[in-house]
Amino acid sequence: MSHAAIWDSICRLRATAPLVHNITNYVVMNNTANALLAIGAAPAMIHAAEEVEDFVAISGALVVNLGTLSPAWVAGMRLAALRANAAGVPWVLDPVGMGATRYRSQVAADLMALKPGAVRGNASEIMALAGANATTRGVDSTASSDDGLHAARALAAVTGGVVAMTGKTDYVTDGTKVRAVHNGDALMARVTGMGCTATALTGAFMAIEADALLAATHALVVLGVAGEMAAEKAAGPGSFQMHLLDALHALDEAALQKRARVE
Amino acid sequence: MSHAAIWDSICRLRATAPLVHNITNYVVMNNTANALLAIGAAPAMIHAAEEVEDFVAISGALVVNLGTLSPAWVAGMRLAALRANAAGVPWVLDPVGMGATRYRSQVAADLMALKPGAVRGNASEIMALAGANATTRGVDSTASSDDGLHAARALAAVTGGVVAMTGKTDYVTDGTKVRAVHNGDALMARVTGMGCTATALTGAFMAIEADALLAATHALVVLGVAGEMAAEKAAGPGSFQMHLLDALHALDEAALQKRARVE
Amino acid sequence: MSHAAIWDSICRLRATAPLVHNITNYVVMNNTANALLAIGAAPAMIHAAEEVEDFVAISGALVVNLGTLSPAWVAGMRLAALRANAAGVPWVLDPVGMGATRYRSQVAADLMALKPGAVRGNASEIMALAGANATTRGVDSTASSDDGLHAARALAAVTGGVVAMTGKTDYVTDGTKVRAVHNGDALMARVTGMGCTATALTGAFMAIEADALLAATHALVVLGVAGEMAAEKAAGPGSFQMHLLDALHALDEAALQKRARVE
Repeated sequence: MSHAAIWDSICRLRATAPLVHNITNYVVMNNTANALLAIGAAPAMIHAAEEVEDFVAISGALVVNLGTLSPAWVAGMRLAALRANAAGVPWVLDPVGMGATRYRSQVAADLMALKPGAVRGNASEIMALAGANATTRGVDSTASSDDGLHAARALAAVTGGVVAMTGKTDYVTDGTKVRAVHNGDALMARVTGMGCTATALTGAFMAIEADALLAATHALVVLGVAGEMAAEKAAGPGSFQMHLLDALHALDEAALQKRARVE
Repeated sequence: MSHAAIWDSICRLRATAPLVHNITNYVVMNNTANALLAIGAAPAMIHAAEEVEDFVAISGALVVNLGTLSPAWVAGMRLAALRANAAGVPWVLDPVGMGATRYRSQVAADLMALKPGAVRGNASEIMALAGANATTRGVDSTASSDDGLHAARALAAVTGGVVAMTGKTDYVTDGTKVRAVHNGDALMARVTGMGCTATALTGAFMAIEADALLAATHALVVLGVAGEMAAEKAAGPGSFQMHLLDALHALDEAALQKRARVE
Repeated sequence: MSHAAIWDSICRLRATAPLVHNITNYVVMNNTANALLAIGAAPAMIHAAEEVEDFVAISGALVVNLGTLSPAWVAGMRLAALRANAAGVPWVLDPVGMGATRYRSQVAADLMALKPGAVRGNASEIMALAGANATTRGVDSTASSDDGLHAARALAAVTGGVVAMTGKTDYVTDGTKVRAVHNGDALMARVTGMGCTATALTGAFMAIEADALLAATHALVVLGVAGEMAAEKAAGPGSFQMHLLDALHALDEAALQKRARVE
């Protein structure tokens, strides 16, 4: 994949500032909103069943993240996903902690049945979703992303959408084609919500790019490249977060050309 | 308006550290609490119908922000506003995303009927509240604040309180008098929750200044001046947020004298 | 207490990365998660009654924080605490704002009856829990921690666990023994959620140290030392937060040896 295609996506994102509707967890809402603003999208966080249908209908994409679940939120997620499907609004699912509790696994399975255009998770979550033998330990992955590639392809074949599995190497697959992204930095695992940010950026790129395989790949390259830029300036996980937002905001074609590593 | 009056308000705020009761959205709670602490107030976030009445009665001001609505929270907002009115505690309403969904518009109208001492919104939100022809696009404004001044004056006449409409220029009006604040920086639009912070600071100044026109104007100057100070040091939206809190904490008379621009 | 014992705890924490289950408030969730990651633990935020029992059973410790209460969350806290007791998972209670409203006081009393292994609060909160004569003003303490030591000892005797009371000097007591920690910096009071971070770190150390008096003391020294390191680099409360996470991540034996002050 040429860096020029990624840069073209970023330019379209910044030019159109698509509205991205997030139903996401309490822990990362602020970071997610700021990451979306920094790359050029217009984020909104709206979760109540009373209004998600109205809102998703005016949005460019929907992000559904299972981090801090409760029944009222699940009702909102379900209504929003159904309406997104009806209205042709692309949506991405982040099955945070899939496999950690029975409730969480059931909610994830119910939402998977609504066939999200993309799923973004770590290897444990993807393997648990695919019914493979994996252990989710809270929100962390105990399987490597290499281990999960088989599960990711199987899962994509089931939903008909793409699956993005992040780890040391990130993989994006539609069940047939596979893209591998080699960007990122180890500090990203020491900050909460980097996976959630990857999911939100995937949503943003889906709003301006109909090919979900491309959209998810662009999002992961963008986050990985910004992560590398931030890590070079950071003294630890606190300063890393700050530099990451600055890097997403400053990201230009030269940085992509120098750093993007996609197969 | 002389900078001395603003400085006097800040000194009273820091000397008395008024308790500011916030019922606000999940996205900005942390930022709002830190901005209130940085300027010298004592923030608390308490939303449940079971306790908001007890809590607002011991508070210096109440901030009601509609960002991440749900019915249980709306019940708390309503009880808190009623009790604030009964107890003589000033309160400010932030109609985030007013006009974006029918539910949101209904909730905002219901709370407006309780006559907040101040309303703080962007031009789209203020125009939607006033029944003018505007489009709210998520939480962003698609109308300029100049366009909305007529709506702001009309709205203030209806509630009997003040309306603060923020944008490139901020306006504060009681329906008759109008103050224009020319402080701030373009980076403030690339960070989530700056409007919410303006609302929270308005609440803090209302706790120590009975004249709501003055209180809201002081709050907007303070945020705008701190925003300018932060922007001079920031490399992007991530570092801007950090410097903004430092600037609110460090704000002194000299900075106000040099930068405050109010008509 | 020698710094070597504290350093040994940190090494065990980093080597085992215990899963810490947090049911905490919206304001501090992000900071708490990042502080736990920075010191080496694996945080998860899960609150719904539908899944807390499953989750606490696979966790190394449970943190229950009353900051932004509502009935549905209280139900989750209660179920999680009961299951933690049944499964032998240590848990810590943070009675945020105890005494400020009748609802809050009732919830705190109900959870105290479940006998948390540790309670972490400020002097006002501890005195209110102990039934002593104190005033809680929102989430701030109006009593000094020296005033509350008598209440802390009495409270520890009632629960059979330890009580950690933070302030200018921090005290940890099991009702008989008392440890005094003299670390920390005044800037910590100008940032929201430092007390909540102290509680979360206490939970993390309880996961790897069965003696709760030691665990709580180690947590308070670690936070105080990191706070001192951060304050030396900070220009205000915004940059303090960033440096604090970097300092928790970088904390080494030399820093402990130089700074730890425990009696």
